[in-house]
Amino acid sequence: MSTATQNSESIIWSGEADGWLDLLDQTLLPTELKRIECRDAETVWEAIKMLRVRGAPAIGISAAYGVVIGVQTVGMDSTIADLKARAIEVIDYLATSRPTAVNLFWALDRMRAKVDSWGDDLSLADAAETLLQEARAIHQSDRETCHAIGKHGCDVLDDVQGVLTHCNAGGLATAEYGTALSVFFTAQDQGKSLHVFVDETRPLLQGARLTAWELMQRGIKATLICDSMAAQVMREGKVQAVVTGADRIAANGDSANKIGTYSLAVLAKHHGIPFYIAAPASTFDLAIESGAEIPIELRDAGEITNGFGRQTAPDEVEVYNPAFDVTPAELIEAIITEHGLIQPVTNENVRSMIG
Amino acid sequence: MSTATQNSESIIWSGEADGWLDLLDQTLLPTELKRIECRDAETVWEAIKMLRVRGAPAIGISAAYGVVIGVQTVGMDSTIADLKARAIEVIDYLATSRPTAVNLFWALDRMRAKVDSWGDDLSLADAAETLLQEARAIHQSDRETCHAIGKHGCDVLDDVQGVLTHCNAGGLATAEYGTALSVFFTAQDQGKSLHVFVDETRPLLQGARLTAWELMQRGIKATLICDSMAAQVMREGKVQAVVTGADRIAANGDSANKIGTYSLAVLAKHHGIPFYIAAPASTFDLAIESGAEIPIELRDAGEITNGFGRQTAPDEVEVYNPAFDVTPAELIEAIITEHGLIQPVTNENVRSMIG
Repeated sequence: MSTATQNSESIIWSGEADGWLDLLDQTLLPTELKRIECRDAETVWEAIKMLRVRGAPAIGISAAYGVVIGVQTVGMDSTIADLKARAIEVIDYLATSRPTAVNLFWALDRMRAKVDSWGDDLSLADAAETLLQEARAIHQSDRETCHAIGKHGCDVLDDVQGVLTHCNAGGLATAEYGTALSVFFTAQDQGKSLHVFVDETRPLLQGARLTAWELMQRGIKATLICDSMAAQVMREGKVQAVVTGADRIAANGDSANKIGTYSLAVLAKHHGIPFYIAAPASTFDLAIESGAEIPIELRDAGEITNGFGRQTAPDEVEVYNPAFDVTPAELIEAIITEHGLIQPVTNENVRSMIG
Repeated sequence: MSTATQNSESIIWSGEADGWLDLLDQTLLPTELKRIECRDAETVWEAIKMLRVRGAPAIGISAAYGVVIGVQTVGMDSTIADLKARAIEVIDYLATSRPTAVNLFWALDRMRAKVDSWGDDLSLADAAETLLQEARAIHQSDRETCHAIGKHGCDVLDDVQGVLTHCNAGGLATAEYGTALSVFFTAQDQGKSLHVFVDETRPLLQGARLTAWELMQRGIKATLICDSMAAQVMREGKVQAVVTGADRIAANGDSANKIGTYSLAVLAKHHGIPFYIAAPASTFDLAIESGAEIPIELRDAGEITNGFGRQTAPDEVEVYNPAFDVTPAELIEAIITEHGLIQPVTNENVRSMIG
């Protein structure tokens, strides 16, 4: 692994059960590359709270390692009961960092189950080792999911030179390769030269700040555009595919993702360009029949009027700021999952792949 | 005219030939409302140079008034030859303010022709009065063009409650009502309540900074969105028409306008929403057969990477920043001109209305 790649990885564990967690501070990207050495649970808690680590899988993985770090305060002369008490204390504490993050609770529940399984005759060292192994398993499982998505996604980009993406579905939010970006990283691993056009992704500019940065870190040719330029890029023949991530996918394949994704899907259809979603099975919510049941979160006006250092709209202007939109299944050429492609995107194909 | 409307007008002449020009400083909008009292040619020159007044018609009108102001330095004991010499000096000087502004030269040429027509027996007062009359004629002619566009545009919005616009085709750039915005202002004059959704228009945010402000000044319901949200707004049925301006229209009706306009036209078609261009006859370039012949200006990366007051993209990221795009005639429901509607938009209909 090159230094550049190492520096751009969001989560690195160093050493054994007495080791530490090394996080990339995503709030400072792309202008500052600073890593945070977490040697106590408080530093992990603060990093999650302040969004220094973001993205559902990345938060879960970081919290799991946070438990490993948190129990390091228990001295060698303590009992297994002491260690267990401390582990539960750390788990409960870390759970307060971001109360709405589902992956956080899921990961901490896995750590709690591990603690519950400890027998009274387990040595402190062995007990701590089970925590590290569980955190590493969570980390590794996400890494494998991303790589599997990347491999399946590569198959559909055979004749593609230029590709467009939106928002950030990259390694920063996951264990390493991300979802949509995993497709591009894997293509690079296979020796393929892609040119990725990156929507800046207003209002929060995840494309400009994070995706462009991740691609440049890995030496993949990336060109930043404003969201309003995607149609022109398609018309000029600069891209032959669009690949984005998803936040939630209904049983019929309708996919909620960052606002602007639906726009790209319509534009891609008009230009005869296939539109793909790359997402793990965990993104599917089969209890939801269609996208009509997915509520659209409305966010603060300030994200649009005062987003980046100065006011760019009149005082008290009315703003409509939906955080997501829903792309209907019929506009999606295929959904790329770790288990393979869902293509065409139908209720039946979703259930047979995911259900 | 209400105080609010007066304050929001970009160009006001006060008094007679010994009067002054009152310009709205557009560089400070929307956070500061400051007017510039121009009592010498140098102040007019600076306002044009520094983009305090912008938009092709507005620049031409301001320069014409600048000539009226410039000759005020000639004393009452001077000869008509002195006045003529000073007028030519001022015209040549103002022409250096923005060397690429076609309307600037066109307006100054009209003022020069007026000077050339002066007989040796004309009084200084009468000569100065001809300059004021010519400047007022240029101003008034643009005002009438805008109003005529507004009236024709209103007819197509009969069943429309919500409408979407892009960039700024408003009164700030023209004599008073603008082109696309004239349609909305005229609808208001006719007692119709429109709800206008305003694309912020990245990268330079003319929609957020200028259009939203102009609509609010006149009490028209305006909602600001990011460009990437237009598709969602259409899908939710919030708008029943799209109206934008144009920078240059080819003989077949293909229309170049601010980047993002073409995207809106494609999205409107997908949602079954009519897409209109509002533009004066002077925007048509019948020497150009189709949009394929219109060159697309590429602008600086910094507009995208450092547009909001701080850097929002990685150092040295590659950027693609086309200033305009071309909307093909077949996506345009009608072009609204001061002479009436071009509908359907065909070569034949363009030539019969404009040629």
